[in-house]
Amino acid sequence: MEKQILVDMDGVLADVYSQYINYEFKNTGTLLHMEELEGKSEFSFPSFRNYVMTPGFFRTAPVIPDSVEGLHYLNERFRVLIVSSATEFPQSLTEKQAWLNEHFPFITWQQMIFCGSKESIRGDIMIDDHPKNLNHFVGQRIMFPQPHNNASQVENCIRVSGWKEIMSLNWMGVHA
Amino acid sequence: MEKQILVDMDGVLADVYSQYINYEFKNTGTLLHMEELEGKSEFSFPSFRNYVMTPGFFRTAPVIPDSVEGLHYLNERFRVLIVSSATEFPQSLTEKQAWLNEHFPFITWQQMIFCGSKESIRGDIMIDDHPKNLNHFVGQRIMFPQPHNNASQVENCIRVSGWKEIMSLNWMGVHA
Repeated sequence: MEKQILVDMDGVLADVYSQYINYEFKNTGTLLHMEELEGKSEFSFPSFRNYVMTPGFFRTAPVIPDSVEGLHYLNERFRVLIVSSATEFPQSLTEKQAWLNEHFPFITWQQMIFCGSKESIRGDIMIDDHPKNLNHFVGQRIMFPQPHNNASQVENCIRVSGWKEIMSLNWMGVHA
Repeated sequence: MEKQILVDMDGVLADVYSQYINYEFKNTGTLLHMEELEGKSEFSFPSFRNYVMTPGFFRTAPVIPDSVEGLHYLNERFRVLIVSSATEFPQSLTEKQAWLNEHFPFITWQQMIFCGSKESIRGDIMIDDHPKNLNHFVGQRIMFPQPHNNASQVENCIRVSGWKEIMSLNWMGVHA
């Protein structure tokens, strides 16, 4: 049977860090640098929490470089499910689906899961930027780079540099 | 470990049949009777598909009798996840969460999953009205009565008459 791969949205497809920097600049005039965000969860910034509750934040987020090509690559080889933590921010639900439909039109509504916790979603491979999600996952773990996870250690996890590396992985050797 | 129970929303918590009858009457003046709906999926009625795409349909759906008490009962004994097919009708996502928050305030955002397909959601027990969902489920299957499933046969499935019976089940004997 085709392997099932769970792909995270924020920080893997949607560039929420860049969006945070955009919002902070527009709202306060302060230009944050990625280095200031390193090692910290995006949710540790109070202004981040405010912004994600603002209508439009998820709907207008930039797309992570090479993710359209990369997800298309995976979608032709695996059963892809987009699994996104969304119910904490209710207005994000409809925005996230509209955003996916716009940027990844080859992903169908059958392939989308919006949840609170990812612990109960079954899959063979997970691509995520959050150690809390990867740590719970039984299967091949792939960590996508984001400033908050630079120093994170997750057992039995492949750390990639981005979507180009995901496309160059030896997928025949990635086991569940 | 606490058993995990997946509870469907439409047809188990939300009375979408009554809502359909309400909408049909308001829109066409025709009063449908439950008997006319028997044995047919609600989605086989073209007007049903139109109504579920109308803003407000899910947000104002009536609550299934005894479901508040019943879900509260389960929530004190199991790890409850509300699993709802929602991504086919994008505007339903935010409406469904607001509806849950209003009528079932003891269910947290961590306990909600809005998806396209339920096949990849892990659990020990599933309460659902749709045979297509129960048939895929590995674990104890409980069918909730709705006009469309009166004659449906699902293997290894307990058919209940409603929430009162769910509360009176011998849960010690319900195995995963």
